[in-house]
Amino acid sequence: AIAEAVNGALRNGPLAGKHVLITSGPTHEPIDPVRYIANRSSGAQGTALAEAVLALGGNVTFVTGPAAAARPSGARVVEVETARQMADAVQAALPADAAIFCAAVADWRVENASDLKMKKDGSGTLPALQFAENPDILATVSQGDNRPGIVIGFAAETHDVIANAQAKRARKGCDWIVANDVRPETGIMGGDENAAILVTADDVEEWPRLSKDQTARRIAARLAEELS
Amino acid sequence: AIAEAVNGALRNGPLAGKHVLITSGPTHEPIDPVRYIANRSSGAQGTALAEAVLALGGNVTFVTGPAAAARPSGARVVEVETARQMADAVQAALPADAAIFCAAVADWRVENASDLKMKKDGSGTLPALQFAENPDILATVSQGDNRPGIVIGFAAETHDVIANAQAKRARKGCDWIVANDVRPETGIMGGDENAAILVTADDVEEWPRLSKDQTARRIAARLAEELS
Repeated sequence: AIAEAVNGALRNGPLAGKHVLITSGPTHEPIDPVRYIANRSSGAQGTALAEAVLALGGNVTFVTGPAAAARPSGARVVEVETARQMADAVQAALPADAAIFCAAVADWRVENASDLKMKKDGSGTLPALQFAENPDILATVSQGDNRPGIVIGFAAETHDVIANAQAKRARKGCDWIVANDVRPETGIMGGDENAAILVTADDVEEWPRLSKDQTARRIAARLAEELS
Repeated sequence: AIAEAVNGALRNGPLAGKHVLITSGPTHEPIDPVRYIANRSSGAQGTALAEAVLALGGNVTFVTGPAAAARPSGARVVEVETARQMADAVQAALPADAAIFCAAVADWRVENASDLKMKKDGSGTLPALQFAENPDILATVSQGDNRPGIVIGFAAETHDVIANAQAKRARKGCDWIVANDVRPETGIMGGDENAAILVTADDVEEWPRLSKDQTARRIAARLAEELS
């Protein structure tokens, strides 16, 4: 009876009937069969966002890289490893009423990744990695035919946070940017808290330091307002 | 009483009074504050080895990179991130009666790692990473003044496994190499099993596919024979 009451509440939540696509976690870009390029995203913020959207009755497709964080229960979860796999999974998940791109997607992949483990040969010769830009998922979706009604990007910055976030918002064509200062001394990347700055078309809101769960609930509530 | 009996048994185990240094897990080599180069080592084999040595009464110093596997209880655990930190921690842990270098240490670090997050600037220009060789922990310890009585290296290979392992053993100056075929299709790297090949001065033993726990107990038993 409790479960039914909860389900009933969710079906009547402010995001009931809305499909929200959320990306989360890092991507891993292979160098060779054992090595890869990673980043410090734990996936905690993405999982918290999915749970916050689910709690407001939304349907969530959760496209996640190899993140340490638990997967949100109740979401449709799609596991990927690389940025290109994430881009494909995102396209496959559209259309959506909203998309929140919380994943820390690798900007570059290794173009000359090796099928064999690269080995030291004693010559002192070092590997020359050639990089190629990964697809820009946020820009592609923001500017695409299948654009969700609201598109939210995340920006992890170590300097000029607000200016970089505003420039990113304009360049990508998304609606909002949630910016974070991820300098190591803030402890945000991989940590439990966030100090988000919400950059919209005509506003900059600096939120206080909040748990990632609280940050997620604020974003979900704003999203529900926007979609109502 | 049970705990006392167990402790008594350990104190009388074949490795009682022996100090065994074990390295485990991957190392992470920073590219910038959020990106790093990693490898697929889970640390499972290293933790299993430490537990097997502890079960035979040994004292374990466990130097581990940022591994997913649980840390062995009863060991002295030293957490590190980079290869250079691991090299320093290993030197600080000597002398030891035996050393087992199970960690998947990055051969290379990024010499021009950035204090600021590297950003796409829209120019299409890609980052040029300069690599430098990391210290060779196995060779340094095998050839050093403080050399443990027995030094065991691990080799993760994707081709010519035995020949590469024999060459590695000779080049490094260690006593044994435990070699593994880590081609992705074997599922060994990050998996629960191993198919180890023990390469010694005058022998090559191909062990059957065993759990990492079973592999660890075989190595620990061989070590106990050798040190007795």
